Amino acid sequence: MVPVSSGSGKSLTQLFGEAATNAIEDSGVDKIDSMYVGNMMSGFLQNQEHLGALMATAMGREGVPTYKVEGACASGGVAANAGVKAVLSGLEGIVLVGAVEKMSGYTTPQVTSGLMMAEDKERVAATGVTFVGLNAMIARDYMHKYNVPHEAIAEFPVLCHANALDNPKAQFHKKIAVDDVLRSPLVADPFRLFDCSGIGDGAAALVLTSLENARKFTDSPVEVAASAVATDRISLYQRPDITTFEASRKAVAQAYERAGVSADGVDVLEVHDAFSVLGIMALEDLGFSSKGSGSRLVKDGECARDARLPTNTFGGLKARGHPVGASGVYQIAELASQLSNKAGKCQVPDANVGLAQSVGGIGTTVTVHILKRGD
Amino acid sequence: MVPVSSGSGKSLTQLFGEAATNAIEDSGVDKIDSMYVGNMMSGFLQNQEHLGALMATAMGREGVPTYKVEGACASGGVAANAGVKAVLSGLEGIVLVGAVEKMSGYTTPQVTSGLMMAEDKERVAATGVTFVGLNAMIARDYMHKYNVPHEAIAEFPVLCHANALDNPKAQFHKKIAVDDVLRSPLVADPFRLFDCSGIGDGAAALVLTSLENARKFTDSPVEVAASAVATDRISLYQRPDITTFEASRKAVAQAYERAGVSADGVDVLEVHDAFSVLGIMALEDLGFSSKGSGSRLVKDGECARDARLPTNTFGGLKARGHPVGASGVYQIAELASQLSNKAGKCQVPDANVGLAQSVGGIGTTVTVHILKRGD
Repeated sequence: MVPVSSGSGKSLTQLFGEAATNAIEDSGVDKIDSMYVGNMMSGFLQNQEHLGALMATAMGREGVPTYKVEGACASGGVAANAGVKAVLSGLEGIVLVGAVEKMSGYTTPQVTSGLMMAEDKERVAATGVTFVGLNAMIARDYMHKYNVPHEAIAEFPVLCHANALDNPKAQFHKKIAVDDVLRSPLVADPFRLFDCSGIGDGAAALVLTSLENARKFTDSPVEVAASAVATDRISLYQRPDITTFEASRKAVAQAYERAGVSADGVDVLEVHDAFSVLGIMALEDLGFSSKGSGSRLVKDGECARDARLPTNTFGGLKARGHPVGASGVYQIAELASQLSNKAGKCQVPDANVGLAQSVGGIGTTVTVHILKRGD
Repeated sequence: MVPVSSGSGKSLTQLFGEAATNAIEDSGVDKIDSMYVGNMMSGFLQNQEHLGALMATAMGREGVPTYKVEGACASGGVAANAGVKAVLSGLEGIVLVGAVEKMSGYTTPQVTSGLMMAEDKERVAATGVTFVGLNAMIARDYMHKYNVPHEAIAEFPVLCHANALDNPKAQFHKKIAVDDVLRSPLVADPFRLFDCSGIGDGAAALVLTSLENARKFTDSPVEVAASAVATDRISLYQRPDITTFEASRKAVAQAYERAGVSADGVDVLEVHDAFSVLGIMALEDLGFSSKGSGSRLVKDGECARDARLPTNTFGGLKARGHPVGASGVYQIAELASQLSNKAGKCQVPDANVGLAQSVGGIGTTVTVHILKRGD
């Protein structure tokens, strides 16, 4: 994982190369059979496509099969899913999955327009509504429907900022309180600045292979017990209820079934808290609490690293940072660190099963990965 | 396959939906388990990403796993490769692979800039060289190195235009002669207008499943005997010889091995003739002739539909059209038509094995699919 930063000064190639080279070195493999690059906005912001071959060339790994995989803010999650299928296909034995996004160095209108590529350009983006605006509508509806005050939702970024203090690769190292969230500048009502993840550059990478092969390289392999992707209708106006993400429910149901675990069996959790309310909704949609009561889990301290359900243990999207197309791979890399006891000061005790949820668009594409200790 | 057109007036969603819906209806399946969307330029030209979910929504197929797959002009080819791996993984039983590109309705500078996203933005595109300019350098070097005149290379577009006369979905229905190529307007020396594929909108789609399952739906299934992807260093200046595409040689070697066939066993061929010289080079790099003598095959009539090696039987990129990210899927759909005796007036006799080569960038990403009659 590359440290997330809003002023990295690094190119897409430098960011990706740093993460991918470190992942290959850490894993101990000398050759890779293919490479998948998760990214959302390079065509729009950098006017650069063909990232697969570009990254392979930069790393001196040209020759291998490689392509870019895109699923909006879940691009990293779907790239990981592509990598898992590549290994399962039997065609590629050792697979590199990396994801990169460079968002800094552009104007706010540029980045805002870029993010809206996740929504239907003709019917929704063309109206002028912003990505944060659409998510703010969800927050308003959620607060009203379940009678949850902003103070309760604000517990989520507070948790994330606390966890990020121990993560040297986090974008923000700043302890905040609920009052800080409520008093921060208004972005899109009801969201204030600290309800929203920031703009940053980042890249993260994984090396995937069969569990049997992984054991030849490490004493602490991590098993991908499930990799699931589900989608919903792309736009909020097409859905009967915007306070539940059906794609989350569908993806996690498949993942629990494939992995043979239930919510009770999850020891460490990474959820897609691009906005505060999404973190709370994830706790509910993934089965950890009933609808409307997700914030209670956080307020009661149950999501802290030393509690029952350690959540966003490296700071989550809010505080580790959210380089959009890369976040899904950061989450999986963080879980893998936890499950191999390599999480440093962020380490949670006795974790055997981890779950990562990544979201593309406004709950449109959801990936769920369940990881287990593989030793 | 949607008819390729430079004035379709259709959106990305309309183009894709038409191809995908027809593919599903033709195949007889009622449900699909996932969907892969090949596309290169939507982020740049349409400011639209998240094509997987967008297309699934438009088709009323939301819920399924879906994402966009990009490999420059080989996006369709790599999307097909992703679909093949999805089936082989065992996670997805019936997979839709579609690819779409909308290039019309934009200025020439816009499309030209979009195409250059296939090259390294920082080191090459920033110099101002165009995509056709880089390919013209290859043509000049090829003509010099192998002492092949322009007249010989021009045989390739002549062949394609002849074949397209019988394809109702081709972009161009115009018989041309070598003299027409040589006298057409200069684009980038030595290329003239008829050396170059045009700008068009298009979409094509495939339904993939296990051969065993396919036999339940049709009496004329087509087997994907090999799906191979290989890459080269992204830029021409990084290669010792620009008149051979090493990625073609690597991909086809893998494909021949996996399919258990050699060049001699190929009955029908679709190659990536975005520019005339690329068609000639493909004949050589894929093993059908020695270096420098590919044009002789065409001139001697051996690539005609009733001859030994029917090539670009529906018109190829030059005359069927080259909606860049979609072309790789058009090729495979055309081969499938040939191998199931559904090619209409373009039908070649007694074809059992077909090969499709798609190229992304300047020979950087190459996909090779070998198909066999599956009945």
